[in-house]
Amino acid sequence: MKTAIDKIKPEVRAVRAYHLPSLHASVKINQNENPFNAPEEIRREVLSRLERRPWSRYPPFVPTNLLERLATHTGWRADGILAGNGSNELIQAIMTATVSPGTKVMVIEPTFTLYGQFTKIMGGEVISVLLNDNLTFNVPRIASRQALAKADILFLCSPNNPTGCSISERDIRLLLRNTEGLVVVDQAYVEFGGDDFVPLLAEYPNLIILRTFSKAMAMAGLRVGYLLAAPELVQEINKAKLPYSINFFSVTAAEVALERFHYLEPLIDAIKTERNRLFAELQTIEGLIAVPSGANFILVRTRIGSEELFEALHARGILVRDVSKYPMLTDFVRITVGTHAENERLLHELRVLLEGHSGKHGTM
Amino acid sequence: MKTAIDKIKPEVRAVRAYHLPSLHASVKINQNENPFNAPEEIRREVLSRLERRPWSRYPPFVPTNLLERLATHTGWRADGILAGNGSNELIQAIMTATVSPGTKVMVIEPTFTLYGQFTKIMGGEVISVLLNDNLTFNVPRIASRQALAKADILFLCSPNNPTGCSISERDIRLLLRNTEGLVVVDQAYVEFGGDDFVPLLAEYPNLIILRTFSKAMAMAGLRVGYLLAAPELVQEINKAKLPYSINFFSVTAAEVALERFHYLEPLIDAIKTERNRLFAELQTIEGLIAVPSGANFILVRTRIGSEELFEALHARGILVRDVSKYPMLTDFVRITVGTHAENERLLHELRVLLEGHSGKHGTM
Repeated sequence: MKTAIDKIKPEVRAVRAYHLPSLHASVKINQNENPFNAPEEIRREVLSRLERRPWSRYPPFVPTNLLERLATHTGWRADGILAGNGSNELIQAIMTATVSPGTKVMVIEPTFTLYGQFTKIMGGEVISVLLNDNLTFNVPRIASRQALAKADILFLCSPNNPTGCSISERDIRLLLRNTEGLVVVDQAYVEFGGDDFVPLLAEYPNLIILRTFSKAMAMAGLRVGYLLAAPELVQEINKAKLPYSINFFSVTAAEVALERFHYLEPLIDAIKTERNRLFAELQTIEGLIAVPSGANFILVRTRIGSEELFEALHARGILVRDVSKYPMLTDFVRITVGTHAENERLLHELRVLLEGHSGKHGTM
Repeated sequence: MKTAIDKIKPEVRAVRAYHLPSLHASVKINQNENPFNAPEEIRREVLSRLERRPWSRYPPFVPTNLLERLATHTGWRADGILAGNGSNELIQAIMTATVSPGTKVMVIEPTFTLYGQFTKIMGGEVISVLLNDNLTFNVPRIASRQALAKADILFLCSPNNPTGCSISERDIRLLLRNTEGLVVVDQAYVEFGGDDFVPLLAEYPNLIILRTFSKAMAMAGLRVGYLLAAPELVQEINKAKLPYSINFFSVTAAEVALERFHYLEPLIDAIKTERNRLFAELQTIEGLIAVPSGANFILVRTRIGSEELFEALHARGILVRDVSKYPMLTDFVRITVGTHAENERLLHELRVLLEGHSGKHGTM
């Protein structure tokens, strides 16, 4: 006898649900969030606009104001921009618009898990290409005839989550020229480092760029992402996206953040400075290898094993991300750059754990 | 030479984008919104909670508090509830989890366009079954062996948008018993009328119910919907849904609305009273036929043509919905129930337009 559950597609039943246990800690550096709250000058203006607008009315069908502000902010045309409920929704819309059984999606791994998961749910085939052993992009391997020519879509993330490596403008041009497929570059972390590919959009009609308000813009709680591409591509992807997918609270918050971006810039600079300092300090800790990063996180390999390190830090009130289940990343944890005080506390606990003492490393 | 646009699936390119032109009017009764703003006691509490929570942090992975409040509100179990970014997102997730090329989705038309549109985008086949000529559900036709037995999913909306007709509990039981497929009932308008099918969930593991905060709950601007079904079904549909799809603003607003539902109840009662009054008044206007409705809108057939009526009302500052492009609905417009004053203004303008005078109808 057939049951209701049999109506679920086998490819969905086969997927392991993406899940993050809800753990608490006083230093939360596990989700690449901005350690600073959105500045008060932004929050106050958002709340005051929320008071002045009826909540019972739908958001605008097209968030015209937001798209125009994004055009000014990025230098790309407003009709080539699509805003979504986090860039997750835009990844899903790209997949819905392009992937059916047989579609080949190349994913450069280890990377953000949603690219592969959505490809599979849509019945597509994932072509997985690994990074170099030192966790940088292996461009010749990606561009090789056997791989790239077969792919309908290439998905890559630069700076890459969770490794922090970036692909250069020269290399992305090479890939764009060597495929008839779409090249989607998730640049969620680009405000922290790596080349910005927006200037390439005018030249390459097969380039799609994703960006977000969840990281540098300090608004992960509001779920706003955006996609930049040729207008004719944006129009088609928009059909696979839900109407009214961004609520008016979040649209308002994003608009104010762009209008008052100068309040965010010093926070972004502070995070970059802290990342560089944290990286230098991590390198001085025995038994750790830190991976160079252009993002607001640093991948760290530990000799005591990632699960042990995760648990030991958690017991000390610090929550990092155990990424050991990703390909190539056995023994790695990902550490988000926190505030100066949070980073100090992390460094102190790592020294206690790995070196058995709490002072600065002897060579400093 | 292949171009980027060729990577878009033909079924997506074939779809006409769902689009609503942005028109302005002082009486906006075209989107079935609640004519009342969310009550001040709710808005004030929401804004105060928003001030107390960092915006830079992701929403909870599972919105446990909201799900528990929904369980209390509906009488169904929390692990059988999924909250989404509007019920649109949940319709999309159901489709993503169940529809692939060859899947047959029965849609009872005329109805909300997204059911059919998403089926097509996912490569499924729409089996369209029409309402009776008087725009009520034709249950024998839906239940007929040729139709229902072939369908993997039956999608219906009760009270139905845009007609207002409802299906009875007895009839929905009949359909649930006569299919091995899933039965999805969109109950976006159930607070205004028609049977509530939540009590049937415990008996029928193939029943999925959709509900929303956009209508009776006066929060269309915040995009929160929810799905109720057997926990094992919810678990699978959740895999096809984006993580973090509801931002913390909207989660907070929904929680407060449920906690303070007693402030919303009088508004819902007022809308029902106004709907009944508006229906009675519309029936007295020459050249109009009003369709009985269990929702917060009334479908009206006009002898002067829907486009003419739409334009004439718009010129007088009243925005209604021209639904003449839906199957069976040539010459119909859909009118959302507004405030008492808005309904009075509508009735006045309709009398001027159709009867050439502004007084009450002679027979009253």
